[in-house]
Amino acid sequence: MGSFKGHALPGSFFFAMGFWWTMKNILKSVYKRQTRTCYLNSKTLLRRTEIWEGVVVLLMSLTGIAGEQFISGGPALILHKDGQWNQILGWHHTTMYLFFGLQGITQIICFTTNVLPLSSSKLMLSIAIFVETFMFYNHTHGREMIDIFVHQLLVFVGTFSGLVAFLEFLVKNNALLELLRCSLLMFQGTWFWQMAFVLYPPSGSATWNLSDIQNKMFLSMCFCWHYASILILIGVKYALANWLVKSRLRKGCTSEVGLLKHADREQESEEEV
Amino acid sequence: MGSFKGHALPGSFFFAMGFWWTMKNILKSVYKRQTRTCYLNSKTLLRRTEIWEGVVVLLMSLTGIAGEQFISGGPALILHKDGQWNQILGWHHTTMYLFFGLQGITQIICFTTNVLPLSSSKLMLSIAIFVETFMFYNHTHGREMIDIFVHQLLVFVGTFSGLVAFLEFLVKNNALLELLRCSLLMFQGTWFWQMAFVLYPPSGSATWNLSDIQNKMFLSMCFCWHYASILILIGVKYALANWLVKSRLRKGCTSEVGLLKHADREQESEEEV
Amino acid sequence: MGSFKGHALPGSFFFAMGFWWTMKNILKSVYKRQTRTCYLNSKTLLRRTEIWEGVVVLLMSLTGIAGEQFISGGPALILHKDGQWNQILGWHHTTMYLFFGLQGITQIICFTTNVLPLSSSKLMLSIAIFVETFMFYNHTHGREMIDIFVHQLLVFVGTFSGLVAFLEFLVKNNALLELLRCSLLMFQGTWFWQMAFVLYPPSGSATWNLSDIQNKMFLSMCFCWHYASILILIGVKYALANWLVKSRLRKGCTSEVGLLKHADREQESEEEV
Amino acid sequence: MGSFKGHALPGSFFFAMGFWWTMKNILKSVYKRQTRTCYLNSKTLLRRTEIWEGVVVLLMSLTGIAGEQFISGGPALILHKDGQWNQILGWHHTTMYLFFGLQGITQIICFTTNVLPLSSSKLMLSIAIFVETFMFYNHTHGREMIDIFVHQLLVFVGTFSGLVAFLEFLVKNNALLELLRCSLLMFQGTWFWQMAFVLYPPSGSATWNLSDIQNKMFLSMCFCWHYASILILIGVKYALANWLVKSRLRKGCTSEVGLLKHADREQESEEEV
Repeated sequence: MGSFKGHALPGSFFFAMGFWWTMKNILKSVYKRQTRTCYLNSKTLLRRTEIWEGVVVLLMSLTGIAGEQFISGGPALILHKDGQWNQILGWHHTTMYLFFGLQGITQIICFTTNVLPLSSSKLMLSIAIFVETFMFYNHTHGREMIDIFVHQLLVFVGTFSGLVAFLEFLVKNNALLELLRCSLLMFQGTWFWQMAFVLYPPSGSATWNLSDIQNKMFLSMCFCWHYASILILIGVKYALANWLVKSRLRKGCTSEVGLLKHADREQESEEEV
Repeated sequence: MGSFKGHALPGSFFFAMGFWWTMKNILKSVYKRQTRTCYLNSKTLLRRTEIWEGVVVLLMSLTGIAGEQFISGGPALILHKDGQWNQILGWHHTTMYLFFGLQGITQIICFTTNVLPLSSSKLMLSIAIFVETFMFYNHTHGREMIDIFVHQLLVFVGTFSGLVAFLEFLVKNNALLELLRCSLLMFQGTWFWQMAFVLYPPSGSATWNLSDIQNKMFLSMCFCWHYASILILIGVKYALANWLVKSRLRKGCTSEVGLLKHADREQESEEEV
Repeated sequence: MGSFKGHALPGSFFFAMGFWWTMKNILKSVYKRQTRTCYLNSKTLLRRTEIWEGVVVLLMSLTGIAGEQFISGGPALILHKDGQWNQILGWHHTTMYLFFGLQGITQIICFTTNVLPLSSSKLMLSIAIFVETFMFYNHTHGREMIDIFVHQLLVFVGTFSGLVAFLEFLVKNNALLELLRCSLLMFQGTWFWQMAFVLYPPSGSATWNLSDIQNKMFLSMCFCWHYASILILIGVKYALANWLVKSRLRKGCTSEVGLLKHADREQESEEEV
Repeated sequence: MGSFKGHALPGSFFFAMGFWWTMKNILKSVYKRQTRTCYLNSKTLLRRTEIWEGVVVLLMSLTGIAGEQFISGGPALILHKDGQWNQILGWHHTTMYLFFGLQGITQIICFTTNVLPLSSSKLMLSIAIFVETFMFYNHTHGREMIDIFVHQLLVFVGTFSGLVAFLEFLVKNNALLELLRCSLLMFQGTWFWQMAFVLYPPSGSATWNLSDIQNKMFLSMCFCWHYASILILIGVKYALANWLVKSRLRKGCTSEVGLLKHADREQESEEEV
């Protein structure tokens, strides 16, 4: 993973999953907000979606493990060689992917059979993120300041996402909490890309001085900008989703929905104060 | 921001918002406590107030950004100049204001349209405070002991306010939690002023020895006194609000309210034990 | 406070309050558990008790402040003398007492008038404990290892008690959480006494080597023993309270209570699984 | 405890309890999920099981205390000898066992008499785990890097288990949270065994270099693998329990259960979205 691609791959994975989950979540909540009638028939659709998500997460983690182990001189599943540990960093990454793989399997089992409680996939997600965080925390012995710092920031986001995922598991059905967790996953994704550009610039030459305090201060700010962009992206998505659902509903079951919408709004404003 | 004004400005902003929110919150809860009849007609008023708050917060953050960027030799929106980062500390402050601006926008959207869930403005507030905290944490490389310490205390209050704002988002409708968050915002405000006086004394001469441990110990105590004053201020406000609402109600719908008040008190004392 | 008495006094205060609160709490919950009929007539009694508690806390904090300021060469309310801070440690302690005083006042106002929400006294308690913790954290610059360590342990218990008090404020009506908080207050009390004996042995001679790692390891264990004793003490109290309430009820309203008790037990065992 | 056996013993205890609790918990929840009719008659069975668990925990802790104090040159209940503390590390371990003993006693009292609230055994468990964590934190002065690191990891799991146990006490009746806590206890168990093999290899020769950073990085990964295995183990148990309960129910009250199962599934899928 000590390469541009090795950081861009998990970054893309995290961003893709975050992006998809926010989209699903926003559509679901906008839909719920506008009407409650046409809502129930999409239940089997949702269940099927969850299963496919599990499959995709599993495939991603298998790709990640394969990439780490076999491409560009990975450890090739050999743990101990010549009296010492064989490329321990590559194994670290494999371990992280492994837990996300377990999450995928849990999700598939959860939504195909009726054996496990449904929130167990949330719990596994939280565990997978915490393990990733833990691994990154024990990952950067003896590197340069900026290298350690950007990994620490990843640990920082990781800890937050893990906590939010755990809260989601405890609280249940809080759409905003779900959105927060997804935004933090996208955040991890974009930050992986940033790390790739800082530590392994694709131009080849070392454009970043890894021990300059000014760079550290810039990166800590840049970190916040990433999150600001993600928040704005989510805002735009929300507006689009709202416009889409509204225009679709206008065509369909108009009058009935209008009444429901009114009742809904009333109820909400009571909750509010 | 490395000046007296640069610290007094955000201090005043925080204090003003905290002061206003405590006032609103106290009036609301005293009102609710005394009567439930005349309560519902102020709902549109409340909604309009929330929108105006959003506008004020947005204006404050724009003022802050403008001040940081253009007044007294700020970076003037130039990020990179002469091969190095251009006044990175000024950019740090800009970033903090930016997130409070996003909070303002979220609040305006929340209460004008019906698209976003109402608690999203609370969540954005929590995020804005956490970002501020994070920025201050990465802000004081290579400064003197007292300088670092007073910023750390700000980080400390910030973390607490962020957590309380997040709890508010989770728990909802807990008036005391809201009051606690407001008191912590006022606390940040007065502490900004204290920092201005310690680090950039308006008299010009350096009256504070920034590496004296005695000063550090005094400031840690002074910090608590600030909060004690704020708590007492809130207490006084509560007494005033109570007296105001009572005297107003006495004129208006007297007999009816008396009964309600009695029922209310009964109910409460049952909750209590 | 740098004396045996200065540590024994707050220790006794904490222990007394913790002891009294556990007793009240246990009696209340045992009583509730055995019967629900004779329960309601003690409501005014409870309210009156709460007011007296507030008065006692206020008196304790005033005693503490007076002791710190005027006895055995305290700062005597002079903050700045001869160009430097006057006995800043004494002022630290005064600040801690001050917040407990505010808690007392809040409690008195809460239960005499009907203005403040009842949980505000809980919130103030949590704040007072956190302030105490914060002050102790910034209290031990340049002392010896064991001296710092025993204060750190106090900070440790303080943080826990503050958190539990805050949880109490959020959750409400969880008798065990209340008991936990009281046990932690008693813990602080006994630990103050331990500190007094370690740092200022009454025999006069320095019996403890304050830089010996063996002593540190013993004290960390001793710390746990304190808590074990407190837990056992609470267990004994529980047994006594149970026996007391049972024997009293047997004399009074026998048959009726028997039925209620049975119903109670049933209900509980349903909650349990 | 500074021996292979001294680490293997508590490891086996933790693993055994974790293993048993997961089994009980899984059986209970699978049973509940499949049917609600045959459920209630096992209530007295459950209560009796809880009592026996308390007895077992008490016996384990007594064994542990006896082993620490009297076997292979323990302190033999002498705390202070020849002017210094007598084998303070052995006393540390005794203290840890002591708190688990208190937990056992609490559980026995909880479920035999009706005096204590039922959740107090959960609270005591949380306290016992926190005390264990605290003791281990203050346990490794002046040891080698790997030795400290593996103990720190134990502290890390301990903190998590303590927090989860405390959450269990607060939230109640969340089967997955219970499972999570049990999995963390099993985790502690297997990690004790790992520590035994790393620090006191049974072959006798020092096969691990305790100051090699590569070993540290391997162990941090190994730590995660332990947990992955435990998660898989729990998954397998779940499948077995499910198959067992299903095959048993098929023989018994078939038609009736089928209907219930259907209703159950319906209800659940409503909760889910």
